[in-house]
Amino acid sequence: MIQRAILMATAITIGAAALPLSADEGMWLFTNPPKKQLKEKYGFEANDAWYDHLRQSAVRFNSGGSGSFVSPDGLVMTNHHVGADALAKMSGEGNDLIKDGFYATTHDKEIKCVDLELNVLMSIEDVTAKVKAAVPDGTPAADAEKARRAVMNAIEKESTDKTGLRSDVITLYHGGVYHLYRYKKYTDIRLVFAPEQDIAFFGGDPDNFEFPRFDLDVCFFRVYENGKPVKPEHYLKWSVGGVKEGDLAFVAGHPGHTDRLNTVAHLETLRDFVFPKMLTRLRRMEVLLANFGERSEENERRAKDELFSIKNSRKARLGGLAGLQDPAVMKKCKDEEAALKKAVLADPKLKASCGGAWDQVEASMKVWKEIYPEYAALEAATAFQCRSFGIARSIVRYAEETAKPNADRLREYRDSNLDSFKQQLYSTAPIYKDLETIKLADSLSFYAETFGYDDPTVQRVLRGKSPQARAEELIAATKVDDAEYRKKLSAGGKKAIEDSKDPMIELARLVDPLARKVRTRYEQDVEEPQRQAYGKIAEARFAVFGTNVYPDATFTLRLAYGDVKGYKEGGRQIPAITTFKGLYERSAEHKNRVPYNLPQRWLDKKSTLDMNTPMNFVFTADIIGGNSGSPVVNRNNEVVGLIFDGNIQSLVWDFVYDSAQGRATAVHSEALIEALRRVYGAGALADELTGKKSDSEANAEQAWPAGSPRRNLGSRRERG
Amino acid sequence: MIQRAILMATAITIGAAALPLSADEGMWLFTNPPKKQLKEKYGFEANDAWYDHLRQSAVRFNSGGSGSFVSPDGLVMTNHHVGADALAKMSGEGNDLIKDGFYATTHDKEIKCVDLELNVLMSIEDVTAKVKAAVPDGTPAADAEKARRAVMNAIEKESTDKTGLRSDVITLYHGGVYHLYRYKKYTDIRLVFAPEQDIAFFGGDPDNFEFPRFDLDVCFFRVYENGKPVKPEHYLKWSVGGVKEGDLAFVAGHPGHTDRLNTVAHLETLRDFVFPKMLTRLRRMEVLLANFGERSEENERRAKDELFSIKNSRKARLGGLAGLQDPAVMKKCKDEEAALKKAVLADPKLKASCGGAWDQVEASMKVWKEIYPEYAALEAATAFQCRSFGIARSIVRYAEETAKPNADRLREYRDSNLDSFKQQLYSTAPIYKDLETIKLADSLSFYAETFGYDDPTVQRVLRGKSPQARAEELIAATKVDDAEYRKKLSAGGKKAIEDSKDPMIELARLVDPLARKVRTRYEQDVEEPQRQAYGKIAEARFAVFGTNVYPDATFTLRLAYGDVKGYKEGGRQIPAITTFKGLYERSAEHKNRVPYNLPQRWLDKKSTLDMNTPMNFVFTADIIGGNSGSPVVNRNNEVVGLIFDGNIQSLVWDFVYDSAQGRATAVHSEALIEALRRVYGAGALADELTGKKSDSEANAEQAWPAGSPRRNLGSRRERG
Repeated sequence: MIQRAILMATAITIGAAALPLSADEGMWLFTNPPKKQLKEKYGFEANDAWYDHLRQSAVRFNSGGSGSFVSPDGLVMTNHHVGADALAKMSGEGNDLIKDGFYATTHDKEIKCVDLELNVLMSIEDVTAKVKAAVPDGTPAADAEKARRAVMNAIEKESTDKTGLRSDVITLYHGGVYHLYRYKKYTDIRLVFAPEQDIAFFGGDPDNFEFPRFDLDVCFFRVYENGKPVKPEHYLKWSVGGVKEGDLAFVAGHPGHTDRLNTVAHLETLRDFVFPKMLTRLRRMEVLLANFGERSEENERRAKDELFSIKNSRKARLGGLAGLQDPAVMKKCKDEEAALKKAVLADPKLKASCGGAWDQVEASMKVWKEIYPEYAALEAATAFQCRSFGIARSIVRYAEETAKPNADRLREYRDSNLDSFKQQLYSTAPIYKDLETIKLADSLSFYAETFGYDDPTVQRVLRGKSPQARAEELIAATKVDDAEYRKKLSAGGKKAIEDSKDPMIELARLVDPLARKVRTRYEQDVEEPQRQAYGKIAEARFAVFGTNVYPDATFTLRLAYGDVKGYKEGGRQIPAITTFKGLYERSAEHKNRVPYNLPQRWLDKKSTLDMNTPMNFVFTADIIGGNSGSPVVNRNNEVVGLIFDGNIQSLVWDFVYDSAQGRATAVHSEALIEALRRVYGAGALADELTGKKSDSEANAEQAWPAGSPRRNLGSRRERG
Repeated sequence: MIQRAILMATAITIGAAALPLSADEGMWLFTNPPKKQLKEKYGFEANDAWYDHLRQSAVRFNSGGSGSFVSPDGLVMTNHHVGADALAKMSGEGNDLIKDGFYATTHDKEIKCVDLELNVLMSIEDVTAKVKAAVPDGTPAADAEKARRAVMNAIEKESTDKTGLRSDVITLYHGGVYHLYRYKKYTDIRLVFAPEQDIAFFGGDPDNFEFPRFDLDVCFFRVYENGKPVKPEHYLKWSVGGVKEGDLAFVAGHPGHTDRLNTVAHLETLRDFVFPKMLTRLRRMEVLLANFGERSEENERRAKDELFSIKNSRKARLGGLAGLQDPAVMKKCKDEEAALKKAVLADPKLKASCGGAWDQVEASMKVWKEIYPEYAALEAATAFQCRSFGIARSIVRYAEETAKPNADRLREYRDSNLDSFKQQLYSTAPIYKDLETIKLADSLSFYAETFGYDDPTVQRVLRGKSPQARAEELIAATKVDDAEYRKKLSAGGKKAIEDSKDPMIELARLVDPLARKVRTRYEQDVEEPQRQAYGKIAEARFAVFGTNVYPDATFTLRLAYGDVKGYKEGGRQIPAITTFKGLYERSAEHKNRVPYNLPQRWLDKKSTLDMNTPMNFVFTADIIGGNSGSPVVNRNNEVVGLIFDGNIQSLVWDFVYDSAQGRATAVHSEALIEALRRVYGAGALADELTGKKSDSEANAEQAWPAGSPRRNLGSRRERG
């Protein structure tokens, strides 16, 4: 049961300034929903049970996305592009679930995911006082960082021991508030349905983040416990008819990351330094993987999921950078900062406690820029960009960290996280040696390019060889791609790791002290000063603007809302809702050319479809990456849609929310049912969602399993 | 008539050291062919007429490639990918000559190219003494650079005035030797034949620079003078049967650029600095253009030629970088430099004159790295990456430069070059505003990323707008995409340019002083010290190794040779010659999937083809980018093939030639004839090449013009 602690223990409202919020803005905490705004603008009022129901129906995909329970039998809905990671891991040569889709007509045909973990947020506790008490003002940064890590690890451990739930201390407002989130964790997740990627991602990269849009970006999984479908206490019922233009709609999901509370100096660093560097890396990966994929159908399959993510990130980051380079956006941020600063300086007490915070952030930026290349290469491991290295490092660190007391460990090795950590480490997801080799060779070259080929550390890593030759020998000889080997090695503890002659383990051992050094520098001289400074800025913000402020996104559960409406773009009115008719027209306009090609099923079943079925819609809810797969519900908490994207104008929401043109994009609930019944012959699934039997005619043709891919998973261990 | 001047006036052979050449190495000057090597290894001897005939049959494509006269009626053969620039410029919406190919069954159907210029090398004169006399040792760099520019401009002007020929002073050995090349220039070039890109570039980017290979990378043009096909004094006859494994073959072509005489410090700068920067830019352009092309078929057509070039450069530069990062390659360069240095230091006179040259090069590298970002952005105009800016700058500079005496002008505005310059400036090649806008927006963003968005110059360029908004307004409003407007504006001289309100002209005016400043810095503090230093190193090399040293490539005519032979790769024997049979097999292996898809004509005509026809072959001739389209001839100076590529192992030839695996790749002459006759029904063209009528059966089916694209050029002026 959720603990409604006082939201902001440290807030002292001095109240004069107006809350700088746009209409429908906000990624709200479920502990502090925007009741006032909802009542004023929409006349909407709901009791706590309404919010609790939505919160506990929401599901987090730990692989990076959102979802929701949508049936009494543990059915979970998310996006195809959220499920794609799981689909890729259960595919093999000649069995491409991402491309071909899947439907289990009965429970026994559902396929178990390799390493997927889902979380449901069961309770929230404010632990700000505890965390802050452990780190008194004035503690030197190095000590502060350690003390903070220790107290957070300890709170989590205590909670896990007590409740058995996954327990995470969440940093909110960049360090203004700390919450303890307790999650129920599910790890037996099975695939029920996925459409073909050509319809899930119709329009491909060109249409990604654009509107009008025509995607069936959906995937259904079923959660099992003790070998049986789970009966969730809360799940969302299906609406009749979905949304119409002008309707109020809500989103419960896990926005990943925003930078709205950043100082201007921080944003400028993102604009002139961090984003360009990230984009350079993304483009490099995009070219590498696209070229690899072009070589054969099987190569394309192996690289597909990662390539999609990279292209998606590239387009999103480009949009974000465009926002940072837009003087209107930056002016808004500057004006807001100036107003807050002015209020702080006008108040002697605030001035004394918070006045120096902006300079402190700026100083941390200087350190960040200085250490960025080394941090990126060694700690973020962009110099060793392959799964084998990531695994090897995890094994090396696991042995070293778990030998320490819980309080002293790196965050990801804290006791309360170890189950989830092992779920990933011992995953049997396939690892392809050919793909690993080209990625490692390219990133070793990147490393040599960054620091100079003759740099002594680079030479130690390369052992005097070319990046290509070194990558080939490392990947050919390492055994860490074998999950059993990993388990055995880890079981041997520190000694086994130190003695290991596996070349990737040796490389991880070589790199680790250097990586830890730069990580410590980052944690102590960048992250910790920022937490302290942003903690102060948050205090100032609460004092000046009141507690009606939402924190930046942190991949934790939030509530957003807005109304379904179109917008004007270049003098043209963009409709709020698209239809199946529009889908077929857009495909025809492009002569069914990739990425506007329709799957064969959609061509075959065209005549059976109601062309006026709403397909996608836009609304003003405040979402961002991580919200993918979030349920969209109406006033009655019924499913009306499925978030899968935002439009181009929403990409600037990383920094500033604006609903003049910016929109969240969702699949309409009616499209899902109509497609399941008429295109996929998946009437049973549609029945389960809607809670009622449909007429037989709509489900007459069972396209599956005849058209479904083989379930043979024999090639899952394929290593290329 | 070629002037056989003494090759190296300054050479003093001291002779002890062995010439460090591999077998078949060398991009030889026609004034100094490798007669000794040819006689010793191949027993080949030829008289001057043999070399003169080959030299004057060779043709340079000023757009960047090679070719040759191959018929008495002015037919010129080159690669499809060399002709693609011309093909793109004569294509329009719905008329994609690159994709669909072209064949003019009669002369009147041949299409005139928009701005193509071909050059034939008529004579060579050594002007080293003249150039060096104008720049005495010890002249300060700034004065030396000006004096050198003045004397080169003057020599060229005098030659043009006297002979009417295009006259270029060529810098050889990075400044050791200067030659005056006189070219006969042709500007009325008409398209005769091009195959579909799917067969010209079969295998696409994955197979590019790889072998076995199956490309029909050919294009035929016809040269006209006074409205009639030219009757060239020299043209190459077609061989009977082409080459077989073990045959000696020659290449006459225009290798673009190599760095084999670079010092080690210079190579290290390329490895750790220049190549990574170039690759970052290429990948950025690749992602941008690929994404633009994905949006529609017409977008794809508009971006195609440039995207091909970029992908081709990216793969070539990646191969070059891999070479620089290969310790074996670098060791060879280091050993050679050490040997030369040792010999220099052992000789007091050489030590005094040349001993400091290596340090001088290294010092120039420091300056180069310092000014690189500004030089690249402003002078190389990577900050304004669109044709409209290039045109605007040319207009602005043309007015300013031509107001000066010839001797003082920037090299490209020297009198002797103005005809060629204007041919480009007033080209009616189509300019697409949509493509221009995305390229300019992206490059303006690159500019802001490089120097910081708030940099004062960046802000003057952007006028306080976002890169996207600024690019849109510039491209929408400029009229420089209209060739007539350019002519009118240029006719008004400096005054008209200064008064112009065209926003792109205004931008070019704003940027030009800054660009000139960094160019001057480059010319005086990088280029000139390098010329001086490399001049000395060249003297040392001649003294130590003798004159049997070829200069680095400079996109001027060279002779290469080698024998047709396969090689071993990963334990596998790679055959020397592929066949049509292999082509169809490779396509089938990939299920005819892009880029392994065959054009419809090749599917339809399969049964009529002799499957044993040799298609592509490899041999050991020393070539590099720019050699594309070079004729391959046998001992009798007859065409046996057409250079179009080198293999992956040849990419390191930028720095070090090695024929263990490195190979030049060519289309076999038999494949050309068989395809023309049987796939394309182009018997008349095959007859013209072979000089004989074929049996009627082989030419029976005239696939053209029924299958040929529309000749309608109405959309050539399309501006998107």
